[in-house]
Amino acid sequence: MTGREKAEGKERVSRILRFRDYRWDSVEPKTYKDPDSRWSNVIRHGLMGADTDAAFHVRYFEVWPGGYTTHERHRHEHVVVAIRGSGEVRLENKWEPIGFGDVVYVSPNAPHQFRAAGDEPFGFLCIVDAERDRPVPI
Amino acid sequence: MTGREKAEGKERVSRILRFRDYRWDSVEPKTYKDPDSRWSNVIRHGLMGADTDAAFHVRYFEVWPGGYTTHERHRHEHVVVAIRGSGEVRLENKWEPIGFGDVVYVSPNAPHQFRAAGDEPFGFLCIVDAERDRPVPI
Repeated sequence: MTGREKAEGKERVSRILRFRDYRWDSVEPKTYKDPDSRWSNVIRHGLMGADTDAAFHVRYFEVWPGGYTTHERHRHEHVVVAIRGSGEVRLENKWEPIGFGDVVYVSPNAPHQFRAAGDEPFGFLCIVDAERDRPVPI
Repeated sequence: MTGREKAEGKERVSRILRFRDYRWDSVEPKTYKDPDSRWSNVIRHGLMGADTDAAFHVRYFEVWPGGYTTHERHRHEHVVVAIRGSGEVRLENKWEPIGFGDVVYVSPNAPHQFRAAGDEPFGFLCIVDAERDRPVPI
């Protein structure tokens, strides 16, 4: 057992998070960040990582119609996989369309932003290192 | 730049891997493992990780009808997200159905196996630590 497991007094147990229309049992949707004017209409689900020993966290972000994430950069990399609706990603100040199954790699310190397109929420998995630096708004 | 980036003489560049019917531009499907009798009808796509500095790799596995992965265990954890068709996961020697959006966490050293269900290929993302131990067949 690792130190964290010992501290919690339990071992890791395999489990299944059941999907129900882009919500998951036992995962509470949260606001993306503290409210400010840099983002709008985004919710986040911490799917996996906070209570594992893996070197990564898996989150699901949903950007509602008209919404967008913060335009920001950070040292840690993003791997994004779109799984709902359609949206756009801003890379090198150019907006590119992305839809189901598209995989986006955001390299270290690259400014990036996501926004919804169309009438359905735009949802994507975002995988990051468990240990990572804080984003810096552009 | 990290040592690896310097060694390769290049910096990481953000990019989009375009999805085309469960294949991705510039990602070549490979056999799951060397052929043996422990698995059948599985292909793997290394989506992201081999040429990044992230602490994780993202792969897409596809199990064709009648197919199954090796029943195995390893110290490193799996996070699986089903994105195509339907299948089953074997955990603690019990088979559980999984379908689109279900998230499976496989804990350290837990024996596990995946198999297809139905007529469509069963596809899932599988995220693992970049540095990990080798699987041991059960």
